[in-house]
Amino acid sequence: MNAEVLPWAARTKGLVGSIIDSSTSLLQRQTHDIVSFAMGSPAAEAVPSEDFSEIYSSVLANNGAGVFAYGATEGETALRDELLAYLETTPERTSAERLLITSGGMQGLDLAGKLFVDPGDLVIVEAPTYTNGSATLLAYGADIVEAPIDDDGLIVETLPELVQKAGRRPKAIYVIPNFQNPTGTAMSLKRRLLLLALAREWRSIIIDDDPYGMLRFDGRHIPGFRELGGGDPLVFSVRTFSKILAPGLRVGWVDADPAIVEKLIDAKQTMDTCTNVPNQLLSAEFLRRGGLEPHLDRLRREYQKRMRAMQTSLENHFSGVATWTHPQGGFFLWLTFGDNVDTSKLFDVAVQNGVAFIPGRAFSVTGQFGNALRLCFASQTPERTELGISRLAEALKAL
Amino acid sequence: MNAEVLPWAARTKGLVGSIIDSSTSLLQRQTHDIVSFAMGSPAAEAVPSEDFSEIYSSVLANNGAGVFAYGATEGETALRDELLAYLETTPERTSAERLLITSGGMQGLDLAGKLFVDPGDLVIVEAPTYTNGSATLLAYGADIVEAPIDDDGLIVETLPELVQKAGRRPKAIYVIPNFQNPTGTAMSLKRRLLLLALAREWRSIIIDDDPYGMLRFDGRHIPGFRELGGGDPLVFSVRTFSKILAPGLRVGWVDADPAIVEKLIDAKQTMDTCTNVPNQLLSAEFLRRGGLEPHLDRLRREYQKRMRAMQTSLENHFSGVATWTHPQGGFFLWLTFGDNVDTSKLFDVAVQNGVAFIPGRAFSVTGQFGNALRLCFASQTPERTELGISRLAEALKAL
Repeated sequence: MNAEVLPWAARTKGLVGSIIDSSTSLLQRQTHDIVSFAMGSPAAEAVPSEDFSEIYSSVLANNGAGVFAYGATEGETALRDELLAYLETTPERTSAERLLITSGGMQGLDLAGKLFVDPGDLVIVEAPTYTNGSATLLAYGADIVEAPIDDDGLIVETLPELVQKAGRRPKAIYVIPNFQNPTGTAMSLKRRLLLLALAREWRSIIIDDDPYGMLRFDGRHIPGFRELGGGDPLVFSVRTFSKILAPGLRVGWVDADPAIVEKLIDAKQTMDTCTNVPNQLLSAEFLRRGGLEPHLDRLRREYQKRMRAMQTSLENHFSGVATWTHPQGGFFLWLTFGDNVDTSKLFDVAVQNGVAFIPGRAFSVTGQFGNALRLCFASQTPERTELGISRLAEALKAL
Repeated sequence: MNAEVLPWAARTKGLVGSIIDSSTSLLQRQTHDIVSFAMGSPAAEAVPSEDFSEIYSSVLANNGAGVFAYGATEGETALRDELLAYLETTPERTSAERLLITSGGMQGLDLAGKLFVDPGDLVIVEAPTYTNGSATLLAYGADIVEAPIDDDGLIVETLPELVQKAGRRPKAIYVIPNFQNPTGTAMSLKRRLLLLALAREWRSIIIDDDPYGMLRFDGRHIPGFRELGGGDPLVFSVRTFSKILAPGLRVGWVDADPAIVEKLIDAKQTMDTCTNVPNQLLSAEFLRRGGLEPHLDRLRREYQKRMRAMQTSLENHFSGVATWTHPQGGFFLWLTFGDNVDTSKLFDVAVQNGVAFIPGRAFSVTGQFGNALRLCFASQTPERTELGISRLAEALKAL
């Protein structure tokens, strides 16, 4: 393999692969019981798989071979209609010409990169952030600049100085406003308004990635960029069923300006033609039967219980040793040690001790956060969480 | 919308969108019966949807919620194992480290673009060719040069002169060697060997797109680039279940050098995380039960019958008026009129007359082939084909 044969790899190699992949392969080699807080997956028991089984049979019976034909690139009409009807009952109400069904939220981010990012474009991301989000923008040649976050989310007040230093306006700003991955924090209303104002001043796209917004279990709704923007074409909203229904479906959506959606449809045609049809029809029928809202209610109650259980376990085992965030929704919290702890080293010991997480460095393109780690509280029961956190405390002692 | 907000769209807009989309939307507005030879879809009756229904129930019963979890980016083990076992019985036998499961063949092409094409890179494509294939390479900034084809496929002998004229070696050469889309022709063995030799001389990637190779119903197997290349990393083979099982599944695969597959896995993580899981398990179980080979046998017999029926209808209605190709497999044939016929204009009249096709210009980035059109013979019964071709003849007279 010479570099000429692999130009792309030479540009982006190592970002995602390095830590998460080696962690995962280490996990896969373990044969003993591991309490994994690593993956950002819904709990198995949170997926309505029995409903899905029954619904799938009915979808097949009613649609025949049409279930397996090419779908429309913009998404199946049945799903588009049901989703629009559901969103009408939420603060995210929208219209058909603003909607594109995608192959999960990840494809929404890839589309944002494809549409908006040219090599050398300045793109601001949160630090820490969802690494595959940064990676897809990097793959289009983005020049990534990291901006810090605190308990109120992205510290938007730092952006003008970062932009001045960079010497040019950002083409895009990538944010996860609600229950951010990996920290679990939510951006305050004041900062959302400030970010919108800056984006308008700079003509920057806000890539508004919100997989967790519907999973708020504490506190009050904060209006999102979709609401606050009032249809501003600068707001590009990426949504997904992965966290609220099931990730294996690979069904999500983008809400954007109608003129942008037209370009997205052309772009998606050259990426995967259309989103897989059976899972679109499955999701549509789940929505049509009114299943989503009660399902979300169950998830919110359950994840609240699990988050609180993790808080209790952390207080039991890590008081005075680490600090951590207190999310009001979503899947994740973020644990920070003193500078003397290297969580990549801790990971190896932890896995030997039967517990897993994602080390902090995986969430920064510049390798920050070596003393932090991400825990997914959503995928384990309170009992398993206590077991896992106690093992983590032992691992820290052993280190 | 200013151009700065939509840099990507400004680069590639209009290529795919223009003709195929307007054709499709025109089709959708029609309320009367249309014999459509337009889409490259398997016939509805060629999809084993009753088998799928039964298999899906059993997959759900055996896997529970795991069917809906995130899958491995390289693909589900069950599908990888079954696919490797099936390919072992064909000339395309391969190994696990060369295999990546993709979201249809289109994603394989998008991955090729992402991995190999940088802005300004020279890429050679067949003319005519599958437009979404060119479009995805264009989206990465490829400088596309078209090379002509004849009844023996791409006229490889023309490439050295094209390359000399371009003043630089091609980064990639995009070919559909078997039953090419749109012409239905197959590249001769002699030309395959010559192309491989030239690619080695130039260090060019051969993007070997072969959705139809398993659907040969006449003539003898011609060894593919996968076989001829002997594992050469320059051969990048894109495959799909879309034409041999069902396109709505969105399941395909790439066969490439192991070092390239590692990069593809990183790249796919930033595109759609993983291919949808239920349809991978469905395909795996269909293969495990030994369903694919008898299914392919049925398809080959049926498509041979349909192709011959279309040849007969064309002889009845277009002798002396047009020439056309005589495919030995696949889905499509290519009809060419004299220079005085504009098939984009013919399209409008044809749809009024109850028949549809794709006009030739849709298959060239330079708008060649205004006097040709693509017919899909696979999706219509002989009776419907005769009706459709007779309507096409009437449309031509009316024009």
